[in-house]
Amino acid sequence: MAFFEKLNELKAQKNSVLCVGIDPDYEKIPAVVRRQDDFLLTFCQRIIEATAPYCIAFKFNFAFFEAFGAAGWEVLARLRRSVPPHCLTVADAKRGDIGNSARHYAGAILEHLDFDAVTVNPYLGFDACEPFLNYSEKGLFILCLTSNPGAREIQDYPDRDAPLFLHIARRVQEINIHKNCGLVAGATKPDQLRVLCEAVPDLPLLMPGVGAQGGSLDDALQAVPHRNILVPISRSIIYAGEGEDFAEAAGKAAQALQQHMQRYL
Amino acid sequence: MAFFEKLNELKAQKNSVLCVGIDPDYEKIPAVVRRQDDFLLTFCQRIIEATAPYCIAFKFNFAFFEAFGAAGWEVLARLRRSVPPHCLTVADAKRGDIGNSARHYAGAILEHLDFDAVTVNPYLGFDACEPFLNYSEKGLFILCLTSNPGAREIQDYPDRDAPLFLHIARRVQEINIHKNCGLVAGATKPDQLRVLCEAVPDLPLLMPGVGAQGGSLDDALQAVPHRNILVPISRSIIYAGEGEDFAEAAGKAAQALQQHMQRYL
Repeated sequence: MAFFEKLNELKAQKNSVLCVGIDPDYEKIPAVVRRQDDFLLTFCQRIIEATAPYCIAFKFNFAFFEAFGAAGWEVLARLRRSVPPHCLTVADAKRGDIGNSARHYAGAILEHLDFDAVTVNPYLGFDACEPFLNYSEKGLFILCLTSNPGAREIQDYPDRDAPLFLHIARRVQEINIHKNCGLVAGATKPDQLRVLCEAVPDLPLLMPGVGAQGGSLDDALQAVPHRNILVPISRSIIYAGEGEDFAEAAGKAAQALQQHMQRYL
Repeated sequence: MAFFEKLNELKAQKNSVLCVGIDPDYEKIPAVVRRQDDFLLTFCQRIIEATAPYCIAFKFNFAFFEAFGAAGWEVLARLRRSVPPHCLTVADAKRGDIGNSARHYAGAILEHLDFDAVTVNPYLGFDACEPFLNYSEKGLFILCLTSNPGAREIQDYPDRDAPLFLHIARRVQEINIHKNCGLVAGATKPDQLRVLCEAVPDLPLLMPGVGAQGGSLDDALQAVPHRNILVPISRSIIYAGEGEDFAEAAGKAAQALQQHMQRYL
């Protein structure tokens, strides 16, 4: 089954669009875990086990694993294999390169690591996305409207009437022949999000920015009532607890978010 | 000494602007090396030794190393340490992410791996580049005008009069307070390259696209007579030979390119 079909099925089964963001920051990992040699693997694995019942996907931010070098890459591969089958996996790698290089990135992430979906940067154009697009059973979230303030001077270029992010969204709709494309559209920009949703009514969205970045979960869910979406939330779940019971605290935080979400689903 | 000063000094010392692209593709590595267990390290190390006298930098394309998983990342770290001090190192990682994630990418590449420079994708805006910019002694090449055909529909948006790539180039010039920024500007687009060079007369350029991608070395060098540039060339050097003497062949190919370049320097 293709990625977005699975996503839709899991959404209905689990009454959730929650995607837990696995962003393991050394400084924030509870001291009780950090003392262990395999703290990175242990921390992430226990968070995954505790939150899996409430989410439909895990998003792994590659930056946080690359910060640990080759060891981080090894842990990433092991974690990928430890995700239960009732959750999807998103590689938040934001790769973007041309031809042969893009093929190598796509192979590394979608074949060797075997992630179900990946985030991709469109600045190099859609020929650069093709090696990813060709994996028709995998999902591809193309950066469109990101949640950080500085993104506006690029993504809104040249003006509000015809911003780059809309141009990209429309082109993604055109090239989406395998129905395996979605967009990254931040929950922190409700005005632009509304414009985007009108322009491309069918594209699934990965909607970061809820929680620590200031986006409201209610606004995000109201903006996209009948759409295939994933709402990644990281810090407020994975660092919910600081003691021995950190995984339990993460599970509770994920459960509370799932319960909040199901009112809209 | 800061990156671009070193680059300028090496250019004068070695009469070269050649940057050898280390893109180790399993299919293209000579069979005689591929038989060895440590073929990836051996191949790259011998290419580096043979070509170092003729180039002033090595550019490591992360896609090709990530294709080998954690082992590839380990080899990348070892290769970085094996580059002689009379050559600079460029991490061709094309990373782009926001806030905390960007900080982790920057730390991984510029601190832990200790590369001298890195390529960065500007689609997320310049706040996303800041963690890289803050390493004032390191070099930052921001993607601007890439060498692939499909890039045009994004980078020339919305039209020829005010294309996105020019907007980005001008903004890079403004934010370049540490004088540690350059642009990636492909040698395959001489018309746009000329426009770019007029708009930002002082920014250094990393100019891919010469050789296998169809760009002409002469056109590229004539376009930027008095500028700090780096010309990365990969395939026609590192795969110049297929037999036992593959490293010698790579050295000869690099030497021929350096001799060709010095006419313009």
